[in-house]
Amino acid sequence: MAQEQAIRPRPLPNVLLFISVPTAAWFLLRPLIDPAPPLPALHASVGLSIFALLGSLYLIPALGPTFIRANLKGRDLLKTYDSPIPESQGLICASIYIILLILFIPYVFTESITKYHDSPQRAREGLVVDEFPHHQLAVYLSSLLSLLMATMLGFLDDVFDIRWRHKLPIPIIASIPLLIVYHSERGATDVVVPLPLRWLLGTLLHLGPLYYVYMSLLSTFCTNSINILAGINGSEVSQAVVISLSIILNDLLFLPWAVGFRIPLPLHVTDGVKVGGVWSAGMAYGSRILVERHLLSLYFMLPLLGVCLGFMYHNWYPARAFPGDTLCYVTGMAFAVVGIQAHYSKTLLLFFLPQIFNFVLSCPQLFGLVPCPRHRVPRFDPDTQLLHPSRAEFKDKRPSRLSTLVLRLYSALGLVDLAFDEKTGEIASTTNLTILNVFLLRFGPRREDSLTRVLISTQVCGSLVAFFIRYGLASLVYDGNRR
Amino acid sequence: MAQEQAIRPRPLPNVLLFISVPTAAWFLLRPLIDPAPPLPALHASVGLSIFALLGSLYLIPALGPTFIRANLKGRDLLKTYDSPIPESQGLICASIYIILLILFIPYVFTESITKYHDSPQRAREGLVVDEFPHHQLAVYLSSLLSLLMATMLGFLDDVFDIRWRHKLPIPIIASIPLLIVYHSERGATDVVVPLPLRWLLGTLLHLGPLYYVYMSLLSTFCTNSINILAGINGSEVSQAVVISLSIILNDLLFLPWAVGFRIPLPLHVTDGVKVGGVWSAGMAYGSRILVERHLLSLYFMLPLLGVCLGFMYHNWYPARAFPGDTLCYVTGMAFAVVGIQAHYSKTLLLFFLPQIFNFVLSCPQLFGLVPCPRHRVPRFDPDTQLLHPSRAEFKDKRPSRLSTLVLRLYSALGLVDLAFDEKTGEIASTTNLTILNVFLLRFGPRREDSLTRVLISTQVCGSLVAFFIRYGLASLVYDGNRR
Repeated sequence: MAQEQAIRPRPLPNVLLFISVPTAAWFLLRPLIDPAPPLPALHASVGLSIFALLGSLYLIPALGPTFIRANLKGRDLLKTYDSPIPESQGLICASIYIILLILFIPYVFTESITKYHDSPQRAREGLVVDEFPHHQLAVYLSSLLSLLMATMLGFLDDVFDIRWRHKLPIPIIASIPLLIVYHSERGATDVVVPLPLRWLLGTLLHLGPLYYVYMSLLSTFCTNSINILAGINGSEVSQAVVISLSIILNDLLFLPWAVGFRIPLPLHVTDGVKVGGVWSAGMAYGSRILVERHLLSLYFMLPLLGVCLGFMYHNWYPARAFPGDTLCYVTGMAFAVVGIQAHYSKTLLLFFLPQIFNFVLSCPQLFGLVPCPRHRVPRFDPDTQLLHPSRAEFKDKRPSRLSTLVLRLYSALGLVDLAFDEKTGEIASTTNLTILNVFLLRFGPRREDSLTRVLISTQVCGSLVAFFIRYGLASLVYDGNRR
Repeated sequence: MAQEQAIRPRPLPNVLLFISVPTAAWFLLRPLIDPAPPLPALHASVGLSIFALLGSLYLIPALGPTFIRANLKGRDLLKTYDSPIPESQGLICASIYIILLILFIPYVFTESITKYHDSPQRAREGLVVDEFPHHQLAVYLSSLLSLLMATMLGFLDDVFDIRWRHKLPIPIIASIPLLIVYHSERGATDVVVPLPLRWLLGTLLHLGPLYYVYMSLLSTFCTNSINILAGINGSEVSQAVVISLSIILNDLLFLPWAVGFRIPLPLHVTDGVKVGGVWSAGMAYGSRILVERHLLSLYFMLPLLGVCLGFMYHNWYPARAFPGDTLCYVTGMAFAVVGIQAHYSKTLLLFFLPQIFNFVLSCPQLFGLVPCPRHRVPRFDPDTQLLHPSRAEFKDKRPSRLSTLVLRLYSALGLVDLAFDEKTGEIASTTNLTILNVFLLRFGPRREDSLTRVLISTQVCGSLVAFFIRYGLASLVYDGNRR
């Protein structure tokens, strides 16, 4: 009975629907009523995001049986019960997300369309210049294309279980439209050199084609790094929630607020971050192009946050729905898209600190120095209901000198727990090289939901550090204010 | 033994690979060598199309076992053997097609990119106008987006078996990017009224928003009409092959050929179709924009023809691979995309004559007037190995007066064979309302491959009629030469 309860869909209060639908509808209709609010498309985006939240809240439990029938199901490895849980439900999130982004197109471009068609009546000087923002449309469409390819790739991975060396090049192909659009807008491939290195490299470093390599690697990294920090209920989606919240917060700093305010930073090297002032201050310092870029970023992040929050409700411990690779790929690609299109890829990477740590930590297993079992999730003890660090054993082959060196280094840093062969004195086994196992090692065995909370806290701390580096320390190594 | 042979992948001669790969590579490299050929991107497109052909020829048998493992398999209803055949392999075609179209982007836009970046060195007069064809990039990207959505929809339909009323709106959503781009280029929503109706409607009829409804219905029709003319080996893909060949032929008429020639039509109302003359004649009559539109259409049709021919090799009787809905959706959407983006939707519909006939014929079953069994494919007689028309029976409910009227009309036209209840004299059963059953009724029972050949011949005849209407009769009802 208790087991059945565990996999029955989590109930949804009806009152939520009655409050949210009118609110969302108001946000969607308000831009159409004269006088329009200052940022009409942003209003509509908030409305769509509420619908995104409701969509994933209600559709995920509703489509669960359909997924199970289509054999998209799995059992929860860290539970005592065997009941099938619908898998790959990130597909529902991705579909809602992409359909809403397409329905949003008229909101972003209608103002331009109206202006554009009325243009003969407007006073014009000299040559008639094409005023429709075709370039922005190309940016928007290429972003959608990359998102859809990531969704497709994720879902194919769920259905076919593609080998990783076959799927590695696909995010690179998916990023080609992004790169072409970046190129077509004379995208800068120069990097501003930090002050301490200028004596060596000069002020600007022209990376040229290497910059494109960097950007396609960025999309590969974003799509895969969330995917490898996975395995416990709520882990994938909570990373996406925290990262998207951080990006939204960062975008808000660049918007033209009607009131100006200042965020004091506890630093004597900078006098705090100034925000606000219509179209004139904020972090955008009056640059219309910066405001537009961060608005674009918001248009992609708000509905993503919506679908992720809805999914998190059903994916929280004990999970009623699994994300599959689809959710990791689409959220990762969404982050890469806004990082590239809104030109803040360095800031973006700062929000990925836990993922970067986890990736670096995992490298010895990913590149075959240390045996890599199929699942590296923590080990579940059915008696205590607690999670313990899982282990990888050196069975057939002995650890190489390089592996021993790396593992001893990790051990000295307190990242792994090693076991030694009594006879040879060689390393016999190690805890798996993931951040989740490190948490369990440092903070002791704990329940699954408690581990997810530790992960979320780490991600939040990572974002705080990121903001501190971005707005506090950047002025130390760069002159002027860097995007 | 004979049965096993039937489902073993059809062998591929190695010599094909040795000849095709260098040829394709030459077509891809030639545009990069100075002096570039007159239409460099078209060269590259031919090269990619050869790779598209090879890709589907070799990948479809290679990935068959993967599809069967992922439970994407079906048995051939019209065979004596039960062996599982990989299903939804149109997904492979669609993936190859879309990846090649993305890799093709640099070829189409590099010339523009180079020009654009070198622009400061070029002599310029007056205002600096943005020269990068962002608009064409938006057209290209929106087309890719629609194709990818159709692929996704088709594959989801294969995996989840979506109910048709749920999936009907999705091609409409998929067409939104197309429509926005059409709108952004001040797309005409006027229709030129045929001469005989001008006294009533005037020369130009302004359809306005209705024109957009027409275009989104066009994409819904194209994606679904191939899907309902299906069920025997090779039927879906052969329609796609004939339609894409017809479109390619039509596009070629608009290209700037170095030599001029004239196709005499056996009509005394017109003096034949003139073709040729660099950038000056052809059907484009010197319009650069018409040439560009038909080039765009060729870029989308050539690789489609490639993947379809490759797939047809494995899907031909007895089939080693099934297309699934994915192939029908992606090919249908590709036709809708070129029809809308290259502005020849009326000509496009002329190439769909057999599909239109089949759709009109099917309506009584699609809209519930006549019972519609799950499969309407012809009935297979294992003894004679011949196909016979399949029947739909009025079991639970009696035929309404409207159904009786429609079926009697069809019967009078020789399209159905009716059976009557001996007691009541009412219609007891009818042959299913598909063009395939009509063929079997008119031409007698035949083998599956022979029926496919009849279908192909019909499609070819339909295209001949289409060309005749488009270039022979259009001048009777329109003044001047209509696109």
